[in-house]
Amino acid sequence: MSDLPKAIEIVEEGPREGFQIEQAPIRTADKIALIDALSATGLKHIQAASFVNPKQVPGWADAEAVVAGFAPREGVDYSALWFNEAGLRRALTFKDRLTLAGSISLSASEAFSRRNLNRDHDGQIAAMHALVDAHQRAGVPVSRVVVMAAFGCNFSGDVAPRRVIETIEDGMQIATDKNVPPPALTLADTMGWATPQRVARLIGETRNRWPDLSIALHLHDTRGLGIANSYEALRLGVTNFDAAVGGLGGCPFAGQPGAPGNIATEELVLLCEEMGIATGVDLDALIAAGRLAEKIVGRKLPSAALRSGGLNAFRRTGP
Amino acid sequence: MSDLPKAIEIVEEGPREGFQIEQAPIRTADKIALIDALSATGLKHIQAASFVNPKQVPGWADAEAVVAGFAPREGVDYSALWFNEAGLRRALTFKDRLTLAGSISLSASEAFSRRNLNRDHDGQIAAMHALVDAHQRAGVPVSRVVVMAAFGCNFSGDVAPRRVIETIEDGMQIATDKNVPPPALTLADTMGWATPQRVARLIGETRNRWPDLSIALHLHDTRGLGIANSYEALRLGVTNFDAAVGGLGGCPFAGQPGAPGNIATEELVLLCEEMGIATGVDLDALIAAGRLAEKIVGRKLPSAALRSGGLNAFRRTGP
Repeated sequence: MSDLPKAIEIVEEGPREGFQIEQAPIRTADKIALIDALSATGLKHIQAASFVNPKQVPGWADAEAVVAGFAPREGVDYSALWFNEAGLRRALTFKDRLTLAGSISLSASEAFSRRNLNRDHDGQIAAMHALVDAHQRAGVPVSRVVVMAAFGCNFSGDVAPRRVIETIEDGMQIATDKNVPPPALTLADTMGWATPQRVARLIGETRNRWPDLSIALHLHDTRGLGIANSYEALRLGVTNFDAAVGGLGGCPFAGQPGAPGNIATEELVLLCEEMGIATGVDLDALIAAGRLAEKIVGRKLPSAALRSGGLNAFRRTGP
Repeated sequence: MSDLPKAIEIVEEGPREGFQIEQAPIRTADKIALIDALSATGLKHIQAASFVNPKQVPGWADAEAVVAGFAPREGVDYSALWFNEAGLRRALTFKDRLTLAGSISLSASEAFSRRNLNRDHDGQIAAMHALVDAHQRAGVPVSRVVVMAAFGCNFSGDVAPRRVIETIEDGMQIATDKNVPPPALTLADTMGWATPQRVARLIGETRNRWPDLSIALHLHDTRGLGIANSYEALRLGVTNFDAAVGGLGGCPFAGQPGAPGNIATEELVLLCEEMGIATGVDLDALIAAGRLAEKIVGRKLPSAALRSGGLNAFRRTGP
């Protein structure tokens, strides 16, 4: 067990990813309150908003108001998401409040790409070329290749690791073509197909091809395997994870309404801290933020750790 | 990854453990319907009832009617639980329908023992001596040592592996004193304190002391780590697991109402089958049984796999 990492970095995506899927509109003030609560937990990276087309994701029509409204905390960096130049332009208005960085996002499943982005694979590549150009014109760095549906797809079934490697290659080629410095990689289990075995295989194949590449995982807990998948990645030395407080989120295009969303940040923090892996996060404060998130969305969130809390309270009250 | 086991055995405890904790009484006919549904899933071991004191666990006052009522299926063995001679006598009435076997159950946490069994550790040992005597008089084998609170305790905090080893030794000593053939072992994470690291350490220390002992795990998903803990045990070659359909259950004495119960059988089956480990269980049939369980208890059960289903349906409908 000695090869577990000493510390990990978590990107908290609850505000951004969490609120895009809720049925009822979430009040801008509530989104801001959650971001501010998360800022006080020790989390260092918070994805605060999504500058996406309000016609496609109406839950983020108020992205500007949210980003203008939260109280930035020193030592925390706040990011946002966008998929096209229009989104980038909206984000640029807030370059004093947000850490702006672009991604080259490709789907390893063409079926998902068509459903989610309304483009085939070549169309995706062309769109990402154009998006990198837009970033370079705006002076915003492009720092990451993101591969969606990297473990399987509800619209096309299993996704072979070879297909993922090819998709990463496509993303890296875009970076090379545009003279972008070597980007990091995020492997996203967009629809909850990962198992620990698939995590190990894909990380292994990726490292065989790019030994020095920094790999982050974006895992969903769709079928209850998200924390086991995280654990496998920790065993393999992965130190960068996306997560969402309470297990907020889920993909509005995955075709599975009601399925759990992202891995719950508090379960990841609990897993790590109880195994001696530092996260920098105060679990009790994070659970309080999770309860706020539940209040905001008006339903129970899927996180078990949110129900039960951490273990330290029982240690303190023990005889 | 090649050292994962080829197959595992699951003891389905949903009917027994699941219904003891529900607030509203569960109809006898509903308990029978769930057992019959589980019998059709491919599960080979179903714990059907608990012959416990109805004053302490009113949810099982109808144990006799349940056991008399289900439709035994060939190839499935049905078991029951009891903690004293009175329970054993009730179970004996059904020796034609149940596979009767006794356990030597001890808690590694004396605080939990006092709360749960109203006895200190010496009192537990004396009670188990008397219980083994009763089994031997009745001609019922004693085949297992069960250590409760083997990973931690809500009433006394962390439980050191050394304390667990001593508790196993106490159980083995009872078996030796009574000329019981070498029993198997169940390590129970009664209150959800296990992490993969604690699972690995405890299994390692147990095997150092008893290299040939068959180890089963009874894991709860109290804090969302249950499937990660199962995965670690699989990596270490453990092939015997208790689980409860839908994640039914939880311990009525653990002091955490609302916390998730046992690991969900369908999540364990999904984890295993997707990694090539045979369970013998038809996941779709099991999920149907889980939905029946939800209907019976009248609330959403915590299992994510129950929300989302397995992956094969998406494979079949893929292009």
